[in-house]
Amino acid sequence: MRIGHRPERDKRVTTHVALSSRALGAKGIYVDTYDPVLEENIRSVVDRFGGDYTIHTGVSWKEAMKDFSGKVVHLTMYGQQVVDAMPKIPKDEDLMIIVGASKVPFEVYERADFNVSVGNQPHSEIAALAIFLDRYTEGKALYEDRGGKMKVIPNERGKTVVNTD
Amino acid sequence: MRIGHRPERDKRVTTHVALSSRALGAKGIYVDTYDPVLEENIRSVVDRFGGDYTIHTGVSWKEAMKDFSGKVVHLTMYGQQVVDAMPKIPKDEDLMIIVGASKVPFEVYERADFNVSVGNQPHSEIAALAIFLDRYTEGKALYEDRGGKMKVIPNERGKTVVNTD
Repeated sequence: MRIGHRPERDKRVTTHVALSSRALGAKGIYVDTYDPVLEENIRSVVDRFGGDYTIHTGVSWKEAMKDFSGKVVHLTMYGQQVVDAMPKIPKDEDLMIIVGASKVPFEVYERADFNVSVGNQPHSEIAALAIFLDRYTEGKALYEDRGGKMKVIPNERGKTVVNTD
Repeated sequence: MRIGHRPERDKRVTTHVALSSRALGAKGIYVDTYDPVLEENIRSVVDRFGGDYTIHTGVSWKEAMKDFSGKVVHLTMYGQQVVDAMPKIPKDEDLMIIVGASKVPFEVYERADFNVSVGNQPHSEIAALAIFLDRYTEGKALYEDRGGKMKVIPNERGKTVVNTD
């Protein structure tokens, strides 16, 4: 769940948030502000590279949380340390991860099950989300086969892309 | 080393690259395109939050590589898998990590000691850099004390910032 998305200003950063979460095994993203261009860009990647990652924009975080039955993790540099939080987060429930673009309403801090920091230095919600998901999935999500039309084959010195379209 | 930085288009993403690398223990960043605004923003964070992270912009990657004696890692979705690469990367030498904004010249692929993928799905150089550094530092860099005037204290439900200025 991406909060505070401003289509013009945040288009590239929110695209990174979506693609990183997809690469690290998330099932989809909600973005609070309606943004059809962002939706189209992400769906185009899913169409080419596979999987069933979904994107919905124009979804308020209150609405998303209301309809959600799993645990909610809010990533913030002010939260408890990720090493302390991780063992408390259940692996057998769905997880909603909230990342803010601009300032996050205090209600999110109150209603999240876990406020988690990935470092207590100012840095990047993309980096925080990536590290959180890499640790949460124990490194297993990164190279999952998504059955896409385009596949990148690891190569020590060049580019190998297989296009089965 | 950030390659292909376009000050207007990439200002936010390159800021995330710099701040994430700082939060994860890097000593500094080179950016190929001259960008005094970016320099000022990053130095302002260092001034408040501590440490001795440096930023130099207007530095070509060829120049940076020529003067560098450690190993060079180029992060790219086309490279060898990070799990395969990591054990080969020495921990007792300096490391330069190259991340591209736009297309990276093929010469970088040829001259890097390691072309490393953090997942072979399209995602984010910020996410790739963050995961790479988190694994490289074995999770130890995130909460290092940097002796800054401003310090964030972990809090499960709110914000605690100590300002010793």
